[in-house]
Amino acid sequence: MNSVYIVKGNIIYTSRPAEFSVIPNGYVIIRDGRIAYCGESIPSEFESYPVEDYGDNLIIPGFVDTHAHAPQFCNRGLGMDKELLPWLETYTFPEEAKFSDLDYAKTVYSAFVNELWRYGTTRSILFGTIHKESTLLLMKLLSKAGLSAFVGKVNMDRNSPDYLIEDTDQSLHDTRVWLEEAQQFGPLVRPIITPRFVPSCTSRLMSGLGDLAVEYNVPIQSHLSENHGEIDWVHSLHPDSSSYTDVYCEHRLMGTVPTVMAHCIHLSDEEMERMHETKTMVAHCPYSNVNLSSGIAPIRKLLNHGISIALGSDISGGHDISMAKVLTEAVGLSKMKWAEVDASYASLTLSEAFYMATKGGGQFFGDVGSFETGYEFDALVIDDHELFDPNERSIEERLERWLYIGDDRHIVGRYVAGKLLDEPPMAM
Amino acid sequence: MNSVYIVKGNIIYTSRPAEFSVIPNGYVIIRDGRIAYCGESIPSEFESYPVEDYGDNLIIPGFVDTHAHAPQFCNRGLGMDKELLPWLETYTFPEEAKFSDLDYAKTVYSAFVNELWRYGTTRSILFGTIHKESTLLLMKLLSKAGLSAFVGKVNMDRNSPDYLIEDTDQSLHDTRVWLEEAQQFGPLVRPIITPRFVPSCTSRLMSGLGDLAVEYNVPIQSHLSENHGEIDWVHSLHPDSSSYTDVYCEHRLMGTVPTVMAHCIHLSDEEMERMHETKTMVAHCPYSNVNLSSGIAPIRKLLNHGISIALGSDISGGHDISMAKVLTEAVGLSKMKWAEVDASYASLTLSEAFYMATKGGGQFFGDVGSFETGYEFDALVIDDHELFDPNERSIEERLERWLYIGDDRHIVGRYVAGKLLDEPPMAM
Repeated sequence: MNSVYIVKGNIIYTSRPAEFSVIPNGYVIIRDGRIAYCGESIPSEFESYPVEDYGDNLIIPGFVDTHAHAPQFCNRGLGMDKELLPWLETYTFPEEAKFSDLDYAKTVYSAFVNELWRYGTTRSILFGTIHKESTLLLMKLLSKAGLSAFVGKVNMDRNSPDYLIEDTDQSLHDTRVWLEEAQQFGPLVRPIITPRFVPSCTSRLMSGLGDLAVEYNVPIQSHLSENHGEIDWVHSLHPDSSSYTDVYCEHRLMGTVPTVMAHCIHLSDEEMERMHETKTMVAHCPYSNVNLSSGIAPIRKLLNHGISIALGSDISGGHDISMAKVLTEAVGLSKMKWAEVDASYASLTLSEAFYMATKGGGQFFGDVGSFETGYEFDALVIDDHELFDPNERSIEERLERWLYIGDDRHIVGRYVAGKLLDEPPMAM
Repeated sequence: MNSVYIVKGNIIYTSRPAEFSVIPNGYVIIRDGRIAYCGESIPSEFESYPVEDYGDNLIIPGFVDTHAHAPQFCNRGLGMDKELLPWLETYTFPEEAKFSDLDYAKTVYSAFVNELWRYGTTRSILFGTIHKESTLLLMKLLSKAGLSAFVGKVNMDRNSPDYLIEDTDQSLHDTRVWLEEAQQFGPLVRPIITPRFVPSCTSRLMSGLGDLAVEYNVPIQSHLSENHGEIDWVHSLHPDSSSYTDVYCEHRLMGTVPTVMAHCIHLSDEEMERMHETKTMVAHCPYSNVNLSSGIAPIRKLLNHGISIALGSDISGGHDISMAKVLTEAVGLSKMKWAEVDASYASLTLSEAFYMATKGGGQFFGDVGSFETGYEFDALVIDDHELFDPNERSIEERLERWLYIGDDRHIVGRYVAGKLLDEPPMAM
């Protein structure tokens, strides 16, 4: 890789939610993996560097998936007639148990990593399983593939099936060992503390994990307020806590290190305030919330509370790994909230949803998800010419059209942190 | 084509909404384009006929799209930030005006027909434009492709842009000429009377079209109750009619010949009763209703009123031509109606939605959309083996998984009325 190189094409991205930034036939100059310049012409000091000319293709930031369960990859599109808790019992837990077998893990995780590559998800925040070894294997495969991710060894020590439950001390011990070993993968693939959700973690486990997060300075991910049955269960398990959100706060799983909580559909105003105070990010997972009949998260209201929103595929509560489709689904669901529930919740615009799927989620990784100076160069090259259209369209219209009707066949280039990933990661 | 042949594979279909009928390694015997037998083994009288063995692949009925606008094909995924009326003005009407040019029509309609083929839509009910010649061209292309459709020359003589409006007498005259010429395409491609919707048709035009439908014994399609602004507009145009539905009834556009009305989101109970009495079918278009912020049609309530429900892509209010995706979106939207609006509206099951996308819509064509004896053999062969999954799954699980995460790449065979369509219809 040249330490400086230049990419040319129709550049479109969102530095802020309100609008797209568009540079037709523009240039991005990358130095040591980061953007040195993005604009209409090559500044004279860079004139001697090589240019990769993508012609009339679109160049957009890589997608960021802030919530997905890698071990549920095979279950996509299955059991869509169930709500969260029976779905976990019937489909999810039996599948996750298989990841005690490293061979099975290698087969599935290789396919999963390939699929992230195919669909242009350059960054992701992933749940593994309770199994330390297979979680390390997932990290290794991601690292080999050149993709960036936060990956969590899951913790669960109560209300879980016999075949998928941990002893509290062992869970904390395994997590510490895993955190040590996980340092080997470097800046692109990093560990994240991952209590599954309150019902499957004792207070002692949650507190221990909160301590480990601070001790190792690693972020935290979990689930929050997805389903009414789940919320009632949390209240019955923690009757002295004022809310589901408070249970996490009380165990120092929110408010210390960067934290992302999936779903957040049914939060009270007080809980939204806590989310804002603790700078907790929401991973909004529209397909999952539809499939598991969980409801429509009030994204406009969360935004109005100053909460950062990113998007998640939530494989396999969500069935579609494509963040292009996840972001159009987020727009659609917000329209249904407006039309059917409360017309004071303005729908999300396309640029808002695109921002969430790029820079919004990218913030969790640092300067990621935009083409501003200093940002890591994560990018996709989109060749939309096979999407039949004899009409002239603007760059923004072409992007909209591809997001709605395009797919992986049109992604012809993928960059992560300045590195071109030009082949599928593994032969399947 | 042999007058009798046999197809073998994993057969799955819905003869009724409540459940899938599944025949692993089963046989369908086709005689003169219709199903003579469907079951586990070949009856002795058919033993000598050729067998097309599709191995472990799935065999499902072809999809029926009961509402799509062929001339809006290029606009898929564009203007998704607008509601119905401004979207019509900005994107739809200017595009439809181009179909006065037969060369443009040929280019776009050829691509559209190819896409129907690709995605396994063996039957469709289509809007053309006001242009008689290009509508005949669309019928010719469909006929050449071997696909089956009802196609309508659109009528509109008020509240339309100057460049896309008809004189009333000319509109009726053109429709009569078109109905005569449209007889040439035979049983698979037939005309359907197509007033655009009440706001763009005068009373005299609507009455004239109602008369033509009866005179030529052809069915009728239009739009009904999609958007609050549209409904208010109809009320102001027809203050003496008790409802939008009544306007159609008063002009004999419902209740005489078979009729399909798209959307039907905001009907009153009285209107639902009229729909039931007049045996009017609803073309439910979930993606379109989301994209244009129209709302969630109360499908369970319509079903409880005894109304027949079919599904429509509504290209290009809807962006996705795949009826597999339209049917999973219908399931998802019904879950949101249940979760966010009224828990007395039970969600649609997958078999209910599959029924709507096959036999439900197929009823409009006769005995179509199922593998029962006497039905026309419309079928798709689905090779889902590239959808990575090391686990054993039932036929029903494999179908669910393909509907949610599969695409056109997995459709490896297409039959319409017993004829194998093994090549894309036109070179593009």
